[in-house]
Amino acid sequence: MSPDSSDAAAGTSKVTRSARTLRRPADPLAAEPAAGGAGAEGGFDPHVPDIDYGVLDSLIGYAIRRAQIRIYEDFVASLAQWQITPPRFSALVIISRNPKLKLTELAHILGIARSGAVLLVDALQEMNLVARRPAPGDRRAYSLVLTPAGKRTLAAAKQAVIAHDAHVASALTEQEQATLKSLLARLAPPRPE
Amino acid sequence: MSPDSSDAAAGTSKVTRSARTLRRPADPLAAEPAAGGAGAEGGFDPHVPDIDYGVLDSLIGYAIRRAQIRIYEDFVASLAQWQITPPRFSALVIISRNPKLKLTELAHILGIARSGAVLLVDALQEMNLVARRPAPGDRRAYSLVLTPAGKRTLAAAKQAVIAHDAHVASALTEQEQATLKSLLARLAPPRPE
Repeated sequence: MSPDSSDAAAGTSKVTRSARTLRRPADPLAAEPAAGGAGAEGGFDPHVPDIDYGVLDSLIGYAIRRAQIRIYEDFVASLAQWQITPPRFSALVIISRNPKLKLTELAHILGIARSGAVLLVDALQEMNLVARRPAPGDRRAYSLVLTPAGKRTLAAAKQAVIAHDAHVASALTEQEQATLKSLLARLAPPRPE
Repeated sequence: MSPDSSDAAAGTSKVTRSARTLRRPADPLAAEPAAGGAGAEGGFDPHVPDIDYGVLDSLIGYAIRRAQIRIYEDFVASLAQWQITPPRFSALVIISRNPKLKLTELAHILGIARSGAVLLVDALQEMNLVARRPAPGDRRAYSLVLTPAGKRTLAAAKQAVIAHDAHVASALTEQEQATLKSLLARLAPPRPE
């Protein structure tokens, strides 16, 4: 994604504006799911009136996608003051909890391409939240660590993410939330090789 | 995402290789969720052994993300012969079912930025699946239509997507699938303005 195409993004709603500032070329993942509702006033509408969704309405995959976009929008709006997107938050948490983590491991854990992890870590480094340290015993590699600012930001952002996630699940009972997590974990089982 | 960073993506598994060919600069959405398991042999592992996921393990949002990456990987592998990613498929379905659709409407429906929709439609046009037609009564706008090749590809891809989605849900009973869809639809309710 070029800076030009990023800047060309249309947006009028509050959520869209804050999301647009997050959509930097250095972080392709930030542009990921919805990144702000596509200029939709009031955010993403999973069922736009008078639109025929055809087979999409019957797919579990598209039901997940619809939920994910709404969650992404709410996340970005909730974390706007820190410019923390879902991939950035996941990276900060994983780096904070797993000492001596290498970039390739981070990519593997987050399920993103190594090139995407490079851009993600570059963005976090620009934000002064993450630093690269020489890895002991391997001259070509380095370990990822949070900076002091990264630790402070993560502590604050974590509370905001927990509040956001509580809102995401607010229409579900505790039992329904547990059921949802259990059903999600059983989706897309590995195929035999 | 630059062509260079895209080419730098590491990948050794079958799924990763086919996904990598899809990750073109013209289509940032193709790089989206997992785009191939990040060089993970055998694909994405939602729970990498010996990794501490911290708060991520308790978040509904991250449970959705884990499911989505697995689904994305299986989708891309299942549709590899057509080079059809989830956003490309969604766009083809929406365009096919809704005559005289404009690009801004497509972006709104899919929950992506207008700039992302431009790149998505550009890629589909390069693949000779979608064409832009002048919109009646509006010189600045155009309508999106499927080409004959687009119609044929969509018909074949649709069967592959239905089979893929059946695999995604194969560990769930019909009742569980209905429960899952109903719970997903209740996530992330709109916030009061």
